[in-house]
Amino acid sequence: MKKWLFFPLFVIAGVSAGAQQEDSVMIKRISDEILTHGKAYENLRHLTKKIGGRLAGSPGMVKAEQWGLKTMQESGADKAWLQECMVPHWVRGGKDEMWCSQIVSNKNPKMPDARLMRKDLDVIALGNSIGTGKAGIAAEVLLVNSFDELEAKKDLVKDKIVFYNYKFNDTYVQTFLAYRDAGQYRGQGPSRAAKYGAKAVIVRSMSHAADNNPHTGATRYDSAYAKIPAVAIGLRDADWLSEQAAKGTVKVSLKTNGHFLPDTIGHNVIGELKGSEFPDEIIVVGGHLDSWDNCEGAHDDGAGCVQTMEILRAFKAIGYTPKRTIRFVLFANEENGLRGGNKYAEEAKAKGEKHIFAIESDAGGFTPRSLGFTLPDDKFAKVLQWKPLIAPYGCTEFLKGGGGADIGPLARTQGTPTGSLNPDSQRYFDIHHARSDVFEAVNKRELELGAVNMAAIIYLIDKYGL
Amino acid sequence: MKKWLFFPLFVIAGVSAGAQQEDSVMIKRISDEILTHGKAYENLRHLTKKIGGRLAGSPGMVKAEQWGLKTMQESGADKAWLQECMVPHWVRGGKDEMWCSQIVSNKNPKMPDARLMRKDLDVIALGNSIGTGKAGIAAEVLLVNSFDELEAKKDLVKDKIVFYNYKFNDTYVQTFLAYRDAGQYRGQGPSRAAKYGAKAVIVRSMSHAADNNPHTGATRYDSAYAKIPAVAIGLRDADWLSEQAAKGTVKVSLKTNGHFLPDTIGHNVIGELKGSEFPDEIIVVGGHLDSWDNCEGAHDDGAGCVQTMEILRAFKAIGYTPKRTIRFVLFANEENGLRGGNKYAEEAKAKGEKHIFAIESDAGGFTPRSLGFTLPDDKFAKVLQWKPLIAPYGCTEFLKGGGGADIGPLARTQGTPTGSLNPDSQRYFDIHHARSDVFEAVNKRELELGAVNMAAIIYLIDKYGL
Repeated sequence: MKKWLFFPLFVIAGVSAGAQQEDSVMIKRISDEILTHGKAYENLRHLTKKIGGRLAGSPGMVKAEQWGLKTMQESGADKAWLQECMVPHWVRGGKDEMWCSQIVSNKNPKMPDARLMRKDLDVIALGNSIGTGKAGIAAEVLLVNSFDELEAKKDLVKDKIVFYNYKFNDTYVQTFLAYRDAGQYRGQGPSRAAKYGAKAVIVRSMSHAADNNPHTGATRYDSAYAKIPAVAIGLRDADWLSEQAAKGTVKVSLKTNGHFLPDTIGHNVIGELKGSEFPDEIIVVGGHLDSWDNCEGAHDDGAGCVQTMEILRAFKAIGYTPKRTIRFVLFANEENGLRGGNKYAEEAKAKGEKHIFAIESDAGGFTPRSLGFTLPDDKFAKVLQWKPLIAPYGCTEFLKGGGGADIGPLARTQGTPTGSLNPDSQRYFDIHHARSDVFEAVNKRELELGAVNMAAIIYLIDKYGL
Repeated sequence: MKKWLFFPLFVIAGVSAGAQQEDSVMIKRISDEILTHGKAYENLRHLTKKIGGRLAGSPGMVKAEQWGLKTMQESGADKAWLQECMVPHWVRGGKDEMWCSQIVSNKNPKMPDARLMRKDLDVIALGNSIGTGKAGIAAEVLLVNSFDELEAKKDLVKDKIVFYNYKFNDTYVQTFLAYRDAGQYRGQGPSRAAKYGAKAVIVRSMSHAADNNPHTGATRYDSAYAKIPAVAIGLRDADWLSEQAAKGTVKVSLKTNGHFLPDTIGHNVIGELKGSEFPDEIIVVGGHLDSWDNCEGAHDDGAGCVQTMEILRAFKAIGYTPKRTIRFVLFANEENGLRGGNKYAEEAKAKGEKHIFAIESDAGGFTPRSLGFTLPDDKFAKVLQWKPLIAPYGCTEFLKGGGGADIGPLARTQGTPTGSLNPDSQRYFDIHHARSDVFEAVNKRELELGAVNMAAIIYLIDKYGL
């Protein structure tokens, strides 16, 4: 099956055949270096297995920053440093617990179903959520399948625990669309239920996994309403709970301990290769170093971090000296604050730095499929000409629209053109923010190919400008 | 990230906008049906967990045929039947064993390294290979890294066990190229070593997995030379053995029991939807039902089988009546004989059946990336116009060149145009023909999307002809 050619024959307007050939050979060298001597996989093993979860403010994040700085230096940075920023410091505070404590059958309130019972459910508090207090909360469950249903039942909400059983939409081939769709229940669900007097909320996990792992992620309280505890449950438990709710009245008990400590110090980790011709033109490539506390943060976003440093290592290993300055950035606090991305953009602005392009890998370490770009049309047309050079390595599509949370502030405050690596998305929400986001879920070659594709586009933008 | 449009706007020459819209809607219906009510994953669970390995002639294959027939009927075939063919009946005959029994150091033949020792290596006999006999074979290892090196060392081969340590080439982004490259050592290695008097051969597994599982697969003896036993070892053991061989003289002991029993009866499993307008024009879709005995054959090729039956189920579920006859075929004996594929083509020819297209899924149940076609240029141009209709579901590329082992005989004997589903190939050779090819390695949505993409191209060829 000869599907991809390594030296594609095509014509790029304004670029000589010799330059094309040179670019093709250079990208093949980068790819060969990464696929045969890559350190990304072993670096990821260290980050996930020796350090593990690393939420902003946690000891894990402090260790990860030190490891990142050292690895950046070992990978060959001309200069590497920590960029300080204040970060929120949310802690889980203990084990999250939820159990079903009573089910009263509609059909026959005096039958055995009505007895006191305890069935534990697999639950995890949402990030940034408040705890229940030591006494916990016990209340009747009000199941709603959507916000529309919540509004229709608003008079029933008071003193209940609202269970948003909104299903992840399997019909979206692009799973990020399903995530954006369902994600609003995690983000807005607590405050929208609190508005009508709910005591707490449960959300169905944003996943189509076949397992029962609950998926966390940040929630956002609307200051207009009371803050109430919020948890997620896995899909099997969500199905079970909805079956019980259909039969009668269900009461659950909830104990969570989440709370904020005072803001603390965190750091972006930055490595740099100084440009030989245009040192003041900066290209950024990055991922985020923080992760949720309930997992190893392997795909989200250990993958993006080790890919970032792998590009640095590969450039040095093949002796490539960039014309422009390339910054390799491991951002702090993407998950619950974005303080790292904001800090980076703020300092860049204060120093009057000129960022010509920033690209982020934060969609998992899966097999690469496309590169996305947020660029003016003329620049997109320029980039699009390079597609035949990169397609043989996996990114067979160049799409309009690309960026990432951490480089968003650069785009917003300075109009920096942005891009993203888009790996295949089918497996991502099986493990996203769940305990199954571990090293073993990452495939070595898929991870490495992500680095290859980003290295290739950085090489071309470095060489030809943007 | 809005990357794929569900209703792409484009113009297909000669096809009205209304027809395009109708096709787009129909393909979306097929996709929604498969992604929300799909049975492929649960069918695969049954095939792998309740039946398991199913080499031609084995009890597993007999059970799989009966299950396949029943599932074909349950999926809604107008007619389903078993097509008998004689199949080879190779059996492993017991546990394969290999251990390193002596290492004599070059540097100091009298030092402790020279002592008798036993280190077991993880080994598996190659399919179709003969056994060592009960006494086993003990001989010195001759390591060669290539056939060139074998030829250069041909005078040293006599009475040795030749160890082909040829490395799977990591630099091929398309892993099937690395497989084709390294695969010749499994296929030709035994006879080429036997030519110079070797007693047995060991091949390095054709894989870039991070584990030590040995990978089997068929070997082929050249009748000009003696048949000698042949085994594969995993990558870690291959590295260890090559390190020892570099230090001195290594002797290994080998016990394998492979042998052929008389040919026996096997079956292709065939389901059919009769065409309403052109019943004599037949479209085939299939995978192969047999697998190696050392695994569950989940990706190879349980995936292709359950995808095939899923297309049938989905067509029936949405009430689609094909214009042409569609045959859903689970082929017998792809792994070590191809008797099923040959039989199907033979009978088609004998009956004067007209096959207008045949497509196969036999590259794993991973996320779909492209469809390949072996067609005359005018027909390829016709098919290429449909790409925008299918790309939103994963196959963003339509490539020249496509087919499969089982439909090869149809192409060769009757010139049938063929195609293949090409899923992402990065993970395939981690598990191919190894004990790790199990149900758990298959992702539900990736498997289903493979069925969606094949269903879409079959729908279009059925509607518009080829």
